[in-house]
Amino acid sequence: MTAGNARRIIVVGGLAAGPSAAAKAARTNPNAEVILLEATDTVSYGICESPYLLGGSLPAEERLVSYTPERLRDEKRVDVRTLHYVEQISPARRTVTVRNLRKRGTEELRYDKLILATGASPRRLSVQHEDARNVFQLHLRADVLALQRMLETELPENVAIIGGGYIGMEMAEAFTLRGCRVSVLHNHALPLTGADEAGGERALEELENHGVQFFPQTPVTGLVAGKDSRVSHVLTRNGSIPCGLVLVAAGLVPNAGLARAARLRLGPIGGILTDRRQQTSRDDIYAAGDCCELKNLITGKPFHLPLATVASKTGWVAGENAAGGRALFDGAIRAAGVRIFDLEVAVVGLTAREATAAGFTVIRETITAYEKIALFPDAQKITIVLLADKRGGRVLGATLFGRTGAVHRANTLSAAIHGKATLEDLSRFDLVYAPPYAPLRDPLLIAAQQLKKKM
Amino acid sequence: MTAGNARRIIVVGGLAAGPSAAAKAARTNPNAEVILLEATDTVSYGICESPYLLGGSLPAEERLVSYTPERLRDEKRVDVRTLHYVEQISPARRTVTVRNLRKRGTEELRYDKLILATGASPRRLSVQHEDARNVFQLHLRADVLALQRMLETELPENVAIIGGGYIGMEMAEAFTLRGCRVSVLHNHALPLTGADEAGGERALEELENHGVQFFPQTPVTGLVAGKDSRVSHVLTRNGSIPCGLVLVAAGLVPNAGLARAARLRLGPIGGILTDRRQQTSRDDIYAAGDCCELKNLITGKPFHLPLATVASKTGWVAGENAAGGRALFDGAIRAAGVRIFDLEVAVVGLTAREATAAGFTVIRETITAYEKIALFPDAQKITIVLLADKRGGRVLGATLFGRTGAVHRANTLSAAIHGKATLEDLSRFDLVYAPPYAPLRDPLLIAAQQLKKKM
Repeated sequence: MTAGNARRIIVVGGLAAGPSAAAKAARTNPNAEVILLEATDTVSYGICESPYLLGGSLPAEERLVSYTPERLRDEKRVDVRTLHYVEQISPARRTVTVRNLRKRGTEELRYDKLILATGASPRRLSVQHEDARNVFQLHLRADVLALQRMLETELPENVAIIGGGYIGMEMAEAFTLRGCRVSVLHNHALPLTGADEAGGERALEELENHGVQFFPQTPVTGLVAGKDSRVSHVLTRNGSIPCGLVLVAAGLVPNAGLARAARLRLGPIGGILTDRRQQTSRDDIYAAGDCCELKNLITGKPFHLPLATVASKTGWVAGENAAGGRALFDGAIRAAGVRIFDLEVAVVGLTAREATAAGFTVIRETITAYEKIALFPDAQKITIVLLADKRGGRVLGATLFGRTGAVHRANTLSAAIHGKATLEDLSRFDLVYAPPYAPLRDPLLIAAQQLKKKM
Repeated sequence: MTAGNARRIIVVGGLAAGPSAAAKAARTNPNAEVILLEATDTVSYGICESPYLLGGSLPAEERLVSYTPERLRDEKRVDVRTLHYVEQISPARRTVTVRNLRKRGTEELRYDKLILATGASPRRLSVQHEDARNVFQLHLRADVLALQRMLETELPENVAIIGGGYIGMEMAEAFTLRGCRVSVLHNHALPLTGADEAGGERALEELENHGVQFFPQTPVTGLVAGKDSRVSHVLTRNGSIPCGLVLVAAGLVPNAGLARAARLRLGPIGGILTDRRQQTSRDDIYAAGDCCELKNLITGKPFHLPLATVASKTGWVAGENAAGGRALFDGAIRAAGVRIFDLEVAVVGLTAREATAAGFTVIRETITAYEKIALFPDAQKITIVLLADKRGGRVLGATLFGRTGAVHRANTLSAAIHGKATLEDLSRFDLVYAPPYAPLRDPLLIAAQQLKKKM
């Protein structure tokens, strides 16, 4: 390392935000030494794509690896150290204590700037046998490989999925495509708790149409394991559900243990709090990705949004700033989509509950309309549940679902929400009318027009 | 008619803006007598859908009629008088002179408020034989029926389309699907003059891939007709092109003759100028639809945007205001899409030329990226040409094309432009990442990010 602005930047965590941060830091300051420490043997992995691999619609698992450690080193100038687990941060001395899982020793590494990208972990059930051989999560590459192996060698007849969120829905499809009988146990009345209940109802219908059994308001009270260390039944208050495989997908919890121990400031949900520069409460420590809370651009309050899109963006900002640059991340709004068999569901912005909690007076309208010219034989209907503030009409959020066209319309609404559009604004947007693609009045405009009447 | 706010509102023109205006007026003032005068025998016709009917992908021509005169009368309380041609307006006396094409006489009708929705007409070639039996336009229902009859009874081997705009493209596809050999003659170098040249080049490639011959910069110098009053060749500076059918689709000219004769104020392109209430330069006369110019929301200057979406919106506003209500139409931006065989093309906002003429310093970037996760076997690429103002980075327009995903992304950009988003704003939009539908970084975000570098 030569003189000048040279410094050592250590990044902790290599799934999504970490590689983004490390690559950006190395690009921002060519004199910096950038070290990425990752506890597993893999960095930069497309975990979001794994349900489609496991369901059989994507080829070749190894292609989910976006960057190998070697490529990150050679192309991005990042010194990647896998199987390096960070046990502790000593902010006063600016060091991290790293356990080398390969060689089994620990060492202390000095940093000038530290970036925490420790991610989030699947929420645990806290019941016995949770770590049995046939109980899985979908979080790390190892999980994907283990699930893939099991599906290939001893396809279970019955699968129990704990959790009816996005991963639960995607994996319900994947296991069904593999020929398993799937049960989904969910703590709430309807799947997709981030969506409006109309979306949850439609998702439920789609699950049932494809033979998936959905157990609403059914917390897991225990797991029954046999002598072979395998879970054979999931216990609930209403009885037991037989299963040859359990997938736990009950939400994500920010991995903030290191940060907490280092006395960094955490938010109401237990994620790391940062400023717009992704700097934590200590000057020389930044954080990015699922371990952080971030500002919701609609409410102005911190929330947890564990999405790969947010991880990339906060990673870039943390990396640039740690390397001496100046980048800002103002916050985000929810924008997510999922395929459930033949159904496309997308959500954007706040749910009615979140909006009410944030002090808005929520008005809500549900419309169903043809997604393109109804005369076309393949024309499909789309349903939009649109939410706005009764005072002023600001668009707050939406749930959209149908065979097609939901995700892209959610993006148009996202642009509207980012621009602080009101229903009046939205109803006047110039949207394309082209018979093979979109009707004269796009369903978005119909929804805005209808909801305006409730103001 | 009873007293109070009762008045007679006359609407001239029944294709798109007229019925919207009339229905809205009748709803706004239940005491008003609303008369719609239409020169042809059809109102409320889906002319935009006709290429798909003629190409064979839509059934039943009569389903393109959205409202029959009877339904407009019964459901919307509009007194529809078809085959009533308005010859003159006498603003001082508040009357229109109407020729009854059925009974052949004329009468004078008094109005309290008048709404002009006289539309636009296909630009004429001004050559001999332009009205020959086998020379068509695609403008009125009669044109559709005549074309349909010809295609069914004596399918021409060769078709010449004059004009490479949207209708030219759609009809090139339609005639090709019917088995005709199609030539497109265009005044400019590339088809789709409203699109960026990269879009025009790709459109040209798609035409040629499907056997359509494109003649660039080829104005028609004449038509050759035989004794049977049929055109057999189109003449150009470079020779003659044989044809059994000619379709003239060389742009639209506002029908402002009535307005001009009544001394209403016209705009630079010859369309009627209105205020935000769609009121013309005379208090009691409103105008809506393709006969008007309207304010471009990006440049602030008047332009002509003959789209059905704009016609509906301006129709509602004119109708509401004529009936004593208060509605405003601020203007519009271009948002249009077209299918050319397997290619989806969409344009939004200004072209580089328009933006430069309006005083912007245009920066432009073209990116091509996968439209969803590249690993999916059916993943397609999309190209986005994005334009912005070098000073400040305001997004000005775009051309998007690919097998799929262009139109909806144009809508997201339209929302961004309506919200006056800069490249910085756009690059930070939260757009959905969902492997079956959209990649981690949507092509829109990539385009914004790349173009930012040119600021």
